[in-house]
Formats: sequence, C-alpha cells, structure tokens
Amino acid sequence: MHTTPTRRAQVGIVGAGQLARMTVQAAISLGVSVRLLAARADDSAALVWPDVLIGSPTSAEALSRLASSCCVVTFDHELVDITILRELEAGGACLRPSAATLAVAQDKWQQRRALAAAGLPVPPHRLARVVDDVVTFASEHGWPVVAKARRGGYDGRGVRILEDRSAAEQTIAEWTGRGIELLLERFVPIEQELAVLVARRPGGEMVTYPVVQSIQVEGICREVLAPAEIEPEMARFAQAMARSAAEALRVVGILALELFLAEGQLYVNEIATRPHNSGHYTIEGCTTSQFENHLRAILDWPLGGTALTGPYVAMANLIASDEAVDLAASLPAALAIEGVRVHLYGKAPRPGRKIGHVTSVGGTLTEARRRAQTAAAVLLGQLPPGGGP
Amino acid sequence: MHTTPTRRAQVGIVGAGQLARMTVQAAISLGVSVRLLAARADDSAALVWPDVLIGSPTSAEALSRLASSCCVVTFDHELVDITILRELEAGGACLRPSAATLAVAQDKWQQRRALAAAGLPVPPHRLARVVDDVVTFASEHGWPVVAKARRGGYDGRGVRILEDRSAAEQTIAEWTGRGIELLLERFVPIEQELAVLVARRPGGEMVTYPVVQSIQVEGICREVLAPAEIEPEMARFAQAMARSAAEALRVVGILALELFLAEGQLYVNEIATRPHNSGHYTIEGCTTSQFENHLRAILDWPLGGTALTGPYVAMANLIASDEAVDLAASLPAALAIEGVRVHLYGKAPRPGRKIGHVTSVGGTLTEARRRAQTAAAVLLGQLPPGGGP
Repeated sequence: MHTTPTRRAQVGIVGAGQLARMTVQAAISLGVSVRLLAARADDSAALVWPDVLIGSPTSAEALSRLASSCCVVTFDHELVDITILRELEAGGACLRPSAATLAVAQDKWQQRRALAAAGLPVPPHRLARVVDDVVTFASEHGWPVVAKARRGGYDGRGVRILEDRSAAEQTIAEWTGRGIELLLERFVPIEQELAVLVARRPGGEMVTYPVVQSIQVEGICREVLAPAEIEPEMARFAQAMARSAAEALRVVGILALELFLAEGQLYVNEIATRPHNSGHYTIEGCTTSQFENHLRAILDWPLGGTALTGPYVAMANLIASDEAVDLAASLPAALAIEGVRVHLYGKAPRPGRKIGHVTSVGGTLTEARRRAQTAAAVLLGQLPPGGGP
Repeated sequence: MHTTPTRRAQVGIVGAGQLARMTVQAAISLGVSVRLLAARADDSAALVWPDVLIGSPTSAEALSRLASSCCVVTFDHELVDITILRELEAGGACLRPSAATLAVAQDKWQQRRALAAAGLPVPPHRLARVVDDVVTFASEHGWPVVAKARRGGYDGRGVRILEDRSAAEQTIAEWTGRGIELLLERFVPIEQELAVLVARRPGGEMVTYPVVQSIQVEGICREVLAPAEIEPEMARFAQAMARSAAEALRVVGILALELFLAEGQLYVNEIATRPHNSGHYTIEGCTTSQFENHLRAILDWPLGGTALTGPYVAMANLIASDEAVDLAASLPAALAIEGVRVHLYGKAPRPGRKIGHVTSVGGTLTEARRRAQTAAAVLLGQLPPGGGP
C-alpha cells in the first residue's frame, strides 16, 4: 500500500488524520499529487490514499524523506518539532506554513504576543511558574483565572478555570511536574464563540470566509453554525482581525481565528494555521472548501470563492461516547434524513474522539441545525432511527 | 501500492476510469471501503486509491478475485463479458447492476426491445446483415438511415448516417468485415439532446434527477446544462420514462437515459446503467451527487435528495485536442475564473479523450455556461489566461 518515493509529489502532508483525509479528497478534483507522512498505516487519511510514508511527525529522518520528495510540505496538526523544521528549511525545503509561523501557532504565549502586537484584542495574560504568579494576576484581574497549557492542548484538554489559590496550587503542582508551562488569562464571561477562516497565498492575496458560531461543550466543538448571527459590522471586524492575524504571522494556507464574544466585544481565543474543525461546513456550505483553498494557497494558485451555497449551514461533530458506537450500523438510518451530508473519518470510536461530522444546508438555521443534530444523534446511537430530537 | 485482498471490501468496482475516480471520492465521505479492478496501475482511479487489483475486466480469474473479496461488485463501464458475470452470480457473487441488466445495457438492440416493450418511445429500428436490409428499411422510413454498432460504440464512435445505398454498401462491408453487427434506426431531425438520471435500490425505491440538456459535437458530449429548458410537462414525462426504464431493466445503481427531442416529441436514444457524463454536474449541482447515490443504491441504503443547489448549473467537458494539452500549466489561470469547479482525471491527453470537466452553478444559465466554457477553453489552451470567449 505504501510507495517508496520515486517521483516527486506536489504536496507532502505531515500527519494523516481527518484533515489530511478531507484534503486528499479535494486534491483528487484538482489532480494534485499528494504524499502523506502517517504515523500508522490505519490513520484516517492513509486508509484512502495510495502514496503514504510511515513515520513519526517528529522524526528528522521521516520529515526529511517527505520534504525531499515533495515540492511543498504542509501540516495536518501542530505537533511538530520546530528545530527540525528550521533545519529542513535551511536545506531548501518549502514548508507552508513556514517553521516561523508554526512556532507561533503551537505556542499559545507567542500567539498572544504576536496577535496583541498586530493590534488584535487579546485578553490580559501572562506566563506563570509559581503560585504567587497566579495570585498576583488574580489581584489585578480577579478570580477565577483561566490557566492554559502553553503548548499541546486541544479539544478542551489543557484548559482549567482556577477559582482560588488552592486550585492554583493544585494545577501548578500537577502541570509543572509534567513539564507543562502555564499561560494565565483573564476569565471572560463568554456569550458566544465565533470563528473565521482566511486562506492566504505566499504573496499575501487572501480570501475570507463568513464568520461562524461554534457551540462548545466541555471545550470540544459540537456544532458550527454559518453565518453567525451577529451584527454585520462586528462580522466585518472579525474578518478583518483574521486577515490581520494571517498577515502578522505570514500564514500560507488556511488560518482559523477563534474568537469570544464577551462583555459586548470580541476577544481573540486562539488560532490554528491549517484547515480547522470550524471550517468543515465549507465542503458543502461554500463555493470552495477550506481544504481546496488550503491546497490552492500552498501551491500559490488563485484562491476560490467563499460565499455560502445556501442561506444557512449547520455542522455537527460526531463525538464518540464510547467504543461501542457503530457507525456502519447506524449510517443507513442517518442517510434517510433529508438534506444531510455525512462525513466519516474511518477512525475507531473512543470516548471524546471526533469520528466524523454531518452538514446540512437549509433555508432556515433551525431546519439546518435540527437535521444535522438529528443525523449526528442517530449516527451515535443516541436516537432510534427515524426519531426526532 | 496494490494490496493483496486480506479483508473484504464493501464495494468492488470493475474498471478504474474517471467514473470510478469520482466514485471513490464519494466513498471517502461515507467511509465505504472500495476495491478497484484496474487494467493498469496508472488508470485514473488507481492513481488516487490504495486498494487496487490489477487485471483485465474480461478476465474470469481477475473478476473472480474481485467478486470473492467484495460484498457487492459494480462497474465503471459496460465492456464486460456477460458469460463470466453470469457464472460469478451463479457462484453467489452480488453484482449491481446484475449480469442480466448489463446484458441489455451493452447491446443497443436488446436495449431498444426492452425499452419499447416498457412503452418508451423508441425510433423504428432493426438489425441489418446485408445491404438489402438497409434498402428495405429506407424504403419504409426514408433516407438517410442511422447505422449504429450494436455493441461497444461510445462517444460517437460506431454511429454513421447513411445517405444512400452506396454508403450502406461501404459501411456493411467495413463493419461486417470487423465483426460489428449493425443496428438501423430511422433518422430523426434532432432539436435537442436531453438526459435524465435515476438511482434505484434493489427493492425498487428510486430518486430522479432533473432533466438536463446535453450539447454534443461529433457525437461527443461537450456540455451539460441543468435544468433543460423544456416544458415542465415534458420534463415530468422524461423523468417518468427514466423510472420506467430503470424498472424494466431492474437496474440497481444509476441509470442514465439519453433522449432526443425531435418532431415535437421525445425519443429514446440510449441508456447506461452506471454513473454517466450527463451527471457530472451533480457533484456541486445537486444535493447528492450521482456517485454518492450510486454507492447508496448498490449498498441498499436510503437515497439522497436530487434537488439543484442553485438556479442553473453548467458542465463543460475537457476534451483534449492533442497530446500537447498541458493542464498543469493552465490550471492556475482557470482557477482564477470565479465560480468554477475544476475536475481533472489524471489522464494523459490524446485527441478526443475526456481528461476532465468543469462545473459552474449560477444565477443565470448564460453566466454559468460562460464561466464553464471559458474555464474549459483556458484549461485546454484555447484561450489566453484572462481572456473572454
């Protein structure tokens, strides 16, 4: 199943998760040759693509094999070693986004510094090493204090709300013992979570997607609703922020900017410099998907339109509750729901794991959302076939 | 790149052309496992799929390997040996469509008999072996007479307009010498060519796509326009004909019915019992593509909606004029045209060969068609980048 690289591929992708899977699906239409670096042969994208190298995303040797056999290298995730990437660039490899961009993307503290320097509204924040750092921060900004792992957190992992000194002591002890650096942030009472995607070419040309609302439960994105129901002026401001962030970080490819709406204003939450869960709705919901525009951007090709294909689009993630989830068994019942598009990732179900998503384009947000939610519940076995929410 | 079948695939596909390529693209979303039987490792679909057996579509051994390792087998083309397929079915293989359906589909004479028996309007026709058969037919229906190869013709190959006895003599001599049987058909003055797709499940459940117009040049489909601009009543009749044809032939999967509008009425041209060029527009142009509905039908899953995603959809085929066509070089310029979706098949250009298509969804037919035509011309090097038609 896995080739030895004989001819050069146009695009190499580090990682073979569901983002890479949906990217190769877009690559088929454009006739773009792709080579994956997969940790395992049964990774989501490796199951559906013929040109796969098996190797660790943090192995210098594996990355070098990939980079030397591809015109441009991009990333399915941020869990990469920046030192190795800088060496590859020094040796002539074309990384998009670059090692410098990824260094900022994988470090929440550098992200906040860079975005604040670009004028984006970032909540007050600081690094903390000892309990007194938290107490001092709380004396300025009040309790609770939000503690985030500086690196490596995702889907709600690596975020804690510290209510008092004793909670701070516990988290400091636990995290510093595991080598995790703490980033403190002022707690903001979140009214809505929003996200904006931008695709940016090497020369700076950009396209901006509509602002969407994301519904998070326990830090994991459950639903994405497009467009977000916010004032047009605020939506334009959010889009301008995403462009500023992409420009500040010299992003090539997709940048996802996640925002909070709180206290009547927008705050930056965080960024990702790759296709993002908040953009899965674009496959059916926009003229050009985030995956196709990521490929177009990193290949320095003209970017595609980002208009919605219908009035409203709703996306619901399929998050496994346990190992017993049986998508193959529930799929036919989900397909019987009108106007729903199902995307399965070929991943074994484990508690909290994203194993697919469903999208619905509708004339009303209520209708699109109900369809997507119902199909997701049927797929996850939480609703009997044919049952309503 | 090519696996030995160890685990059973859900779907086996005989042939690995562009139809199989777009089918595996749809299979990724549904998490459907597919195994291809490709004649060559560089066939269009084999370039983008990991699970490929190499073998001839007419080899009993290759077909048996495929069928024994897949739950259901379907077809990228009709160039198959019915005797072998019947033997596979007798041995328990599940073919969808069945050998009986394919036997009719690959034989224009049997097609006409079956469709006429189902009450569909088929032009007067007969088989011909000698010149006098043609002359007798012409004395009843007038010259010219249309001669078609009974089997194996496609894209205008195997169709001749016989103006007189001498043309008949020449074609009879040439074709019978090559073992080609002749089917004669009354010449009808074609005003429009139309097509309708139906997807049918084993139990008879069907969905019907909108009627489309196809623009043919020298027997090759150049463009497809959706919806066809015909009276609603005629459109409903065409759709009913397609359902009758699918029912009469017990089709499982997609059936494409091609029709002529001539002398103020509809005539059956021919059918295909697989995804069809007249349905490529459905990828972006309909709620569910013909490729996804083909998979759903053969897996006996509920079928997806067939509504258009916009007011008008235009599809233009990329037909190579010569070997010098360089899609990789012209692609960026084509992507710069707003509202166009490009599909490349990974096929080497040869004169008359379909190497891709472009689709545009638009608010007016004129706009959608102009965009698709312009992008196709740019891709084929017939227009300078940025030039209008």
